[in-house]
Amino acid sequence: MNEYTFDEIEVGMSASFKKLITKEMEDSFRMITGDENPLHKDDSFALEMSKGKFKGHVAFGMLTASLYSTVAGMYLPGKYSLIHSFDEISFMKPVFVGDELNIYAEVIDKDVALKMIRLKIVIKNQENKKVSRAKMKVLVTK
Amino acid sequence: MNEYTFDEIEVGMSASFKKLITKEMEDSFRMITGDENPLHKDDSFALEMSKGKFKGHVAFGMLTASLYSTVAGMYLPGKYSLIHSFDEISFMKPVFVGDELNIYAEVIDKDVALKMIRLKIVIKNQENKKVSRAKMKVLVTK
Repeated sequence: MNEYTFDEIEVGMSASFKKLITKEMEDSFRMITGDENPLHKDDSFALEMSKGKFKGHVAFGMLTASLYSTVAGMYLPGKYSLIHSFDEISFMKPVFVGDELNIYAEVIDKDVALKMIRLKIVIKNQENKKVSRAKMKVLVTK
Repeated sequence: MNEYTFDEIEVGMSASFKKLITKEMEDSFRMITGDENPLHKDDSFALEMSKGKFKGHVAFGMLTASLYSTVAGMYLPGKYSLIHSFDEISFMKPVFVGDELNIYAEVIDKDVALKMIRLKIVIKNQENKKVSRAKMKVLVTK
């Protein structure tokens, strides 16, 4: 876990990590949210509703987005972080169990008055295709 | 689970549900994300870093935000939903284990060309204080 203080962070700093999406993660996310939508467990429903575009059931978009928590809490800034808000979260392509996601985050702004940093984050799958992107504001508490 | 088709949805329609935040949800979310930040498990760290404002460790912001998945997948529109993006997610107040959250969602726009609805969502705690708000765009696939 990084422990950057606000003064140590500079615009342009970046971090990246990988995460394998597993069935256990899907099951846990379903338990947390109570979201029983068949798109996220029924392969034939996902195939039908996407008119053949999705090869099977799709991981929850917000499961992918939960990795934005990891960006702030573990990497930028790490220990002294408190997520303030997102200007945007977008989902561009479906994520499936077995996908290995690559999360890349970069500091694009520093607000000295609020001790807040702004991050641009891109998540790609193992085929180097963007599956999600976000702009996140994080307060740095030290 | 609701099964609204795009044609059945009207601007002004709303849905709400409640969700108790438990330690099991926090533990599952930590497992999913690998976010080991002490703010979300160490009461004394949370107290210190908030200068006494947080009474104990704080639930992950993105755990609260994961309930936006439930809004789309179970309520509006329910079965035939695919989350497209968020224009905004904000966190206004900390959430703690034992809090009972009230999630209220309302349809604020319909895009006929894209078969997409736009929702305004507010999450309040048991003291009727806003803890998070979002604007979410959801494709309706039927």
